[in-house]
Amino acid sequence: MKRLPLNEQPCPIARSLDIFGEWWGLMILRECFSGVTRFDNFQKNLGVSKNTLTARLGKMVERGVLKRVPVSPGALREHYKLTEMGKELHTVFVALRQWGDKWTFDGAPPNAVVERKNGRIVAPIAVRSQSGRVLKPRDTMLVKL
Amino acid sequence: MKRLPLNEQPCPIARSLDIFGEWWGLMILRECFSGVTRFDNFQKNLGVSKNTLTARLGKMVERGVLKRVPVSPGALREHYKLTEMGKELHTVFVALRQWGDKWTFDGAPPNAVVERKNGRIVAPIAVRSQSGRVLKPRDTMLVKL
Repeated sequence: MKRLPLNEQPCPIARSLDIFGEWWGLMILRECFSGVTRFDNFQKNLGVSKNTLTARLGKMVERGVLKRVPVSPGALREHYKLTEMGKELHTVFVALRQWGDKWTFDGAPPNAVVERKNGRIVAPIAVRSQSGRVLKPRDTMLVKL
Repeated sequence: MKRLPLNEQPCPIARSLDIFGEWWGLMILRECFSGVTRFDNFQKNLGVSKNTLTARLGKMVERGVLKRVPVSPGALREHYKLTEMGKELHTVFVALRQWGDKWTFDGAPPNAVVERKNGRIVAPIAVRSQSGRVLKPRDTMLVKL
């Protein structure tokens, strides 16, 4: 049996992964969530060649996660900003960061996500019921709609 | 400048991505969260060769996300189960699924995550303050510890 390509599978996990294309898609998004918008800064932080980065950023624009925006009104030069679709990945990112903080560092992790206005560390992200109860994997199941 | 390999970068996103190795790592985890434990079922659902799947499952075990467990007490035959480290990825998965449901399907998505005991759809996952307020990307920032 031939498998459907990721973007045609009836599964939002498969389709989402297809949008990022490869790990580098997520590493680019990590930079975006840290406030990086300019090509030069993406390149410096990610250490990839110009050609590769151009292709990757282009793919993220094409798939709707990033958009090209003039650096100032009327300017010809553009930088890269998250679209609404891209911004909504913030939850996935913070969840992955919290997991990585816990499981991939022996000592204290190097950074923390805090509230901008008061510097307090954000709460651990959890799957919750509509009424706010924290749900474990065994408390949930997947059903066909 | 030479880049550090992903698993040595002081970033939990980079280290987490390194653990999954490639998209297939996440696709294997998707199966685990759907209750798949047996090699044959992983193979049928993922449509990869035995050799490839053996290598991938082995990598997930080595990295601590899956463990091999006898299919029944004392049995020689083993299947694959999530470790505690693996189970805690549930949040990342549900967050990615909810994002994919919203942004990668034109019509209604095919499945929903519900509470096992009453069939109610789980709440949208969000980044929250310690007191439970929903935080947007612009409400948070990353600080060095």
